[in-house]
Amino acid sequence: MNERTEIASLGEFGLIEHLTQNISFKNASTLLGVGDDAAVIDHFGRQTVVSTDMLIEGIHFDLSYTPLKHLGYKSVVVNLSDIYAMNATPTQILISIGFSNRYSVEALDEFYAGVYAACEKYNVDLIGGDTSSSQKGFIISVTAIGEVVPDSFVKRNTANVNDLICVSGELGSAFLGLTLLEREKKIFAETGAQPDLEGQAHIVGRLLKPEARKDIVEYFAESEIIPTSMIDISDGLSSDIMHICNKSKTGCVLYEDKFPFNDEAKEFAYKLQLDPTACALSGGEDYELLFTVSQADFEKIKINPSISIIGYITAETEGMHLLTRGGNKHPLVAQGWNHYNK
Amino acid sequence: MNERTEIASLGEFGLIEHLTQNISFKNASTLLGVGDDAAVIDHFGRQTVVSTDMLIEGIHFDLSYTPLKHLGYKSVVVNLSDIYAMNATPTQILISIGFSNRYSVEALDEFYAGVYAACEKYNVDLIGGDTSSSQKGFIISVTAIGEVVPDSFVKRNTANVNDLICVSGELGSAFLGLTLLEREKKIFAETGAQPDLEGQAHIVGRLLKPEARKDIVEYFAESEIIPTSMIDISDGLSSDIMHICNKSKTGCVLYEDKFPFNDEAKEFAYKLQLDPTACALSGGEDYELLFTVSQADFEKIKINPSISIIGYITAETEGMHLLTRGGNKHPLVAQGWNHYNK
Repeated sequence: MNERTEIASLGEFGLIEHLTQNISFKNASTLLGVGDDAAVIDHFGRQTVVSTDMLIEGIHFDLSYTPLKHLGYKSVVVNLSDIYAMNATPTQILISIGFSNRYSVEALDEFYAGVYAACEKYNVDLIGGDTSSSQKGFIISVTAIGEVVPDSFVKRNTANVNDLICVSGELGSAFLGLTLLEREKKIFAETGAQPDLEGQAHIVGRLLKPEARKDIVEYFAESEIIPTSMIDISDGLSSDIMHICNKSKTGCVLYEDKFPFNDEAKEFAYKLQLDPTACALSGGEDYELLFTVSQADFEKIKINPSISIIGYITAETEGMHLLTRGGNKHPLVAQGWNHYNK
Repeated sequence: MNERTEIASLGEFGLIEHLTQNISFKNASTLLGVGDDAAVIDHFGRQTVVSTDMLIEGIHFDLSYTPLKHLGYKSVVVNLSDIYAMNATPTQILISIGFSNRYSVEALDEFYAGVYAACEKYNVDLIGGDTSSSQKGFIISVTAIGEVVPDSFVKRNTANVNDLICVSGELGSAFLGLTLLEREKKIFAETGAQPDLEGQAHIVGRLLKPEARKDIVEYFAESEIIPTSMIDISDGLSSDIMHICNKSKTGCVLYEDKFPFNDEAKEFAYKLQLDPTACALSGGEDYELLFTVSQADFEKIKINPSISIIGYITAETEGMHLLTRGGNKHPLVAQGWNHYNK
């Protein structure tokens, strides 16, 4: 970016207009978008699903290794992931940002390019938001809205004993990407050496530009599967399966040897003497779908290569356990991301 | 507050549970609230209206004179005001907060007490949100959802020539409250003298605990009025009428002698040698409804003591003007709050 346009030269309303001028709607339900006091959505007999998330510089992301375009993309995707985790289809988003005057219009354009790329990919309409200055750092708040066929939304508290525990995609890679970037940042600070990300594009991509599992929710609809419970993995497998079990008043057994890993990620973990299983359990930010299905759906689940069956639901009295490759049984511990302890 | 409970002692999920444990739903449309990936709303053939706003410490509020309970209340109300400004009824909110570790659980309880008080007063359900730590300051993002009879929502860009320009309540008082509190803060910093708010409860209340004009939107429904355009006054009368005129491609004339003031506020303005008209035009944060109606609705509007007719819409070529008490005609200038220039 060679040019730098000061935000003040546009003013608040000029800035909003600049950032939202190319919006075109993809959803028939979007009646009115940015530019009024509120947006308006129509329904056609569907139910609305809503979720919101806040991302704060220095807490949720580090701009020293996060391109603004990726950040815009990820801010949208992590919210859409929550909508998919309800077995719903996202249709609209609202996005508010706060930023200090060290950002130029060009920097915000980069961020919004990522936002629009995500909207395009997931067929979502940006319908509102707010821009504000901040005292420090970049602050993002996204609200995602989706729709679902009446009463086919899937909650966390409805898993049943003997249900299969399934997960989409792979686990632990985003955490390994974070570990790599933090390591390279430290080396750069100490020695000035440029980051060596050779051969690690996959894990870095998993952290900086995650995708939401639209395909899995579409597969549920095609295959007439309604999961008995579902959550997206943001805090780590351990913490998230414990949410399902605690809310459903059940226990569970997870099989370590069934955990899905990416080969490149696994190799990198070994290189760093990290246990891939620990990365999967406690790493977080995978944005995969973790769900339970009735055993009657086993055949339908088995044939989808993007889904792994990693355990089953037990009675609450049996507790929540990991069965290791070596045959040991360890109680699960929620080691998910808790930024209040930092 | 004598006790101080550290946030870390509850953890993120414990905190969310603590803050949301007493929620009970008031709207039949609220199917599922806090505690899952997303909330679910039903519709019954209505259209949904959504709005979001971000409030940042040091930019939008000053905690040295803003009680956290008032802040919670106001954060909700300013978003509901946007929903009313669409001629809709708010039904649900989502609220995300970011805060540093200098806040205790008791402090957040105060904030949420205000949030719940506003929910109670306006019959709105809190259905979701996010809590996060921040590097600096208190950050609030609220998304409000409302419903409207299909196609009876009111936009900003639909005012017609000869429509009457109307405003609810009073203008400029919140700005005078802000001026008073900023003055007392400065005096305290310089001399240590305790704030003297004697007799100024009204203007301070208008700033710290504003209300949204639910009553006006209800009056529209009862009286079968559909305004031709509407906006809520957050940036000042001048900036907000200019939004309506610019978007509707019209001009306007405002009559200074028709502006509604509160007597106490006017007296305080004179005491400070401020022009009440300037406070109304440029002050902002009144959260009154500014709207236009067809002249056919004149009789219905006239009998409501909470509504003042302050001008009329003209052709675009005639520009946007204020007609002063002295008979002079001044072009309107948008002097609304622009924090990027600060």
